[in-house]
Amino acid sequence: MRAVDLIRRKRDGGPLTADEIQFLVAGLTDGSVPAYQWAALAMAIVWRGMAPTETAALVEAMLHSGSVVDLGDIPGPKVDKHSTGGVGDKTSLILAPVAAACGVTVPMVSGRGLGHTGGTLDKLESIPGFRIDLDLAAYRRVARECGLVLAGQTAEITPADRLLYALRDATATVESIPLITASILSKKLAEGIDALVLDVKCGGGAFMTRLEDARDLAASMTSIAAALGTPVTALVTTMDTPLGRTVGNALEVREAIDCLCGEGPADLMEVSLELAAEMLVLGGVVDSRPAAVDRCRGVIADGSALERFGRVVAAQGGDPRVCDDPAAVLPRAARVETVRAERSGWLTRLDARSVGQASMLLGAGRTTVEAVIDPTAGLVLEKMVGDRVEASDVLAELHVGPRHVAALEAALAIFRGGVGIGDEPPPRRPLVIERRPAGSAR
Amino acid sequence: MRAVDLIRRKRDGGPLTADEIQFLVAGLTDGSVPAYQWAALAMAIVWRGMAPTETAALVEAMLHSGSVVDLGDIPGPKVDKHSTGGVGDKTSLILAPVAAACGVTVPMVSGRGLGHTGGTLDKLESIPGFRIDLDLAAYRRVARECGLVLAGQTAEITPADRLLYALRDATATVESIPLITASILSKKLAEGIDALVLDVKCGGGAFMTRLEDARDLAASMTSIAAALGTPVTALVTTMDTPLGRTVGNALEVREAIDCLCGEGPADLMEVSLELAAEMLVLGGVVDSRPAAVDRCRGVIADGSALERFGRVVAAQGGDPRVCDDPAAVLPRAARVETVRAERSGWLTRLDARSVGQASMLLGAGRTTVEAVIDPTAGLVLEKMVGDRVEASDVLAELHVGPRHVAALEAALAIFRGGVGIGDEPPPRRPLVIERRPAGSAR
Repeated sequence: MRAVDLIRRKRDGGPLTADEIQFLVAGLTDGSVPAYQWAALAMAIVWRGMAPTETAALVEAMLHSGSVVDLGDIPGPKVDKHSTGGVGDKTSLILAPVAAACGVTVPMVSGRGLGHTGGTLDKLESIPGFRIDLDLAAYRRVARECGLVLAGQTAEITPADRLLYALRDATATVESIPLITASILSKKLAEGIDALVLDVKCGGGAFMTRLEDARDLAASMTSIAAALGTPVTALVTTMDTPLGRTVGNALEVREAIDCLCGEGPADLMEVSLELAAEMLVLGGVVDSRPAAVDRCRGVIADGSALERFGRVVAAQGGDPRVCDDPAAVLPRAARVETVRAERSGWLTRLDARSVGQASMLLGAGRTTVEAVIDPTAGLVLEKMVGDRVEASDVLAELHVGPRHVAALEAALAIFRGGVGIGDEPPPRRPLVIERRPAGSAR
Repeated sequence: MRAVDLIRRKRDGGPLTADEIQFLVAGLTDGSVPAYQWAALAMAIVWRGMAPTETAALVEAMLHSGSVVDLGDIPGPKVDKHSTGGVGDKTSLILAPVAAACGVTVPMVSGRGLGHTGGTLDKLESIPGFRIDLDLAAYRRVARECGLVLAGQTAEITPADRLLYALRDATATVESIPLITASILSKKLAEGIDALVLDVKCGGGAFMTRLEDARDLAASMTSIAAALGTPVTALVTTMDTPLGRTVGNALEVREAIDCLCGEGPADLMEVSLELAAEMLVLGGVVDSRPAAVDRCRGVIADGSALERFGRVVAAQGGDPRVCDDPAAVLPRAARVETVRAERSGWLTRLDARSVGQASMLLGAGRTTVEAVIDPTAGLVLEKMVGDRVEASDVLAELHVGPRHVAALEAALAIFRGGVGIGDEPPPRRPLVIERRPAGSAR
């Protein structure tokens, strides 16, 4: 078998067999198929796509390129959630302890942020002492003891995905439904989960800006996962405006803790609870989504979700007092600037991408993989889309540290460019656009 | 400027500017744009193509990635010929001394064979002592002294083309008109030529099997070269059946010498003289193609073309007695097998690809870049398409050396599979299918 012949077949629109895909993935992992051959293949896949059987074979091959965790010794269902990434999206920090408190183990492996969207690992690292670089033994121990674990990808798991993702990032081959499906599913299945809830963000602030692309990814994920025997439910949720009132790492942790105390903003609570409810249903803990939402509200109301969060923070080396007094424990920006409304009216637009880019300029995100983020930086949104605004009302606070103060003007300008104030209140748009139940056909 | 952004633009069908193409080619040459990025870009170019201005910029960038030879100190026109490769195609060995004897300097840089088509360098190396690895000084000296030089690519010339060609070969991105155009033109323009005649082979034994692809390449080459100020005339010639009666390196040199003595087969003579005539017209040595053909016949008849060939053989270290007594000087195969006709009729088919593959198995060609060829191996065709054949007539001789004798049966079978004998003589097909004059628009 020669890689060049397989690239040629894919280039010409022909299918690859499972054995051929296995050969290519093994070659990527051990270096016998060089990066340049995979780069050409990835571009041919962007061009020609993959049939479901090919995508499933790619997931399998990548999944088995490294260790596959077996959490069978932990009783009860193991369910995770994955988001394609948004602005202000801190739902993982909320739904993971909520689901754990309801009896679903959440073995969550997350990534870092890049560009205008944040990453769960960066948010967690704003908690003093919190360690995300767990080895497999620590990962299993925290999952067993806390009912959840919030870790970064380890070297042992899906090395083929790490290599391919880096290559795709450098070769403009990220935008491919089968490659995205294979990347997410292989990583997630290697965590040792029984089921997965997928949050496909859709809108101006998301990776997928068009609804049809988000639908395609949701369909691909649910059907390929079903073929591999793992139920995946996908929600397509809106990402035109930031989720919640905060964007930036320590600021988002603080807001997540507010939510776990029952004091979060309505939009963030709704999306977090919808996703958590899906996890409970998939895990077989409750029979229906309404019952699941009630159960989730219950573990927030009785404090057990917050207790779970404190437990995992402590288990991963963080300061658990963050749950009781986040303001005292979390780092705070040296400087806070306010942005005020220039006219009265209704806030009709607060563009997620603009807010994300402003946040990145303030130091909360990375423009390159190597960049060091400032955990204190970001924005607090005092007004949300649909709110009544009077001229000179504070729209937002911009939090910035000394390293990024020079970017303040640019961040302000970008933020302002994303604000729209109109004479009529905007139409209310649903947060959950679509739901694709596990195992549904494409 | 970031390579990934340029790959993305090409992936999405957008154009690249001359500066961007220059950045990418310079990066390929100095290693700052890694091979994997170029592999993805090449596949995106196969997919999306290139506008003529982009292709012209690519030629320019590749041309200037290394030394560009200036042969301005040699008086008179400098014209070369390039063929896309065929089976039994030894026209270079004939037309180069013919054109030189007519007053056109032919600075010819050739390649080796790979797969079922032969390479001029391999043919020349079957002449004892012949050296093709000339440095630039020797290249210029031989061109000046002999009026022609027959050399391999030097390290100084178009390094970007060498790197890109190797990469394309490994990534199934060879089949792209703009990339083929850039590869051929950059190499040829770097030789120091004033004009070029292109022989686009078309048919079952050629790289281009479809007439429309051959036409596209001819159109691309003539128009891009015109834009760059170098006239290129392209002939599309048939390659359904081998050219001449011999396939294999020493055998083909012998047949070329027969042609220079005026004793070659009609098809080979016709194609060689048509191409040589185009070189004379482009070089401004004669006014019309009929006059050019007459002139070429004249230098064969008076022995001056053969004398030129002997001169260049001697200048490049070969044994010049090959011109007088090729049978004595050229190596000969240890074993010669004959293939006989199984029935009487007319030879309607002698498939070029089958003959090329049989020749390769006998040791005349390479299956991999590293393979060592046997200069004595190959086939002598006793019957050509259109000939009357009686049952048990000899159709061909198979020449094989001790290293490849085990492949004799397979070579025989492949040869037989390419033979067709019918009850009617086949229609005569033109050798030159189309002519595209220099500078004609696409």
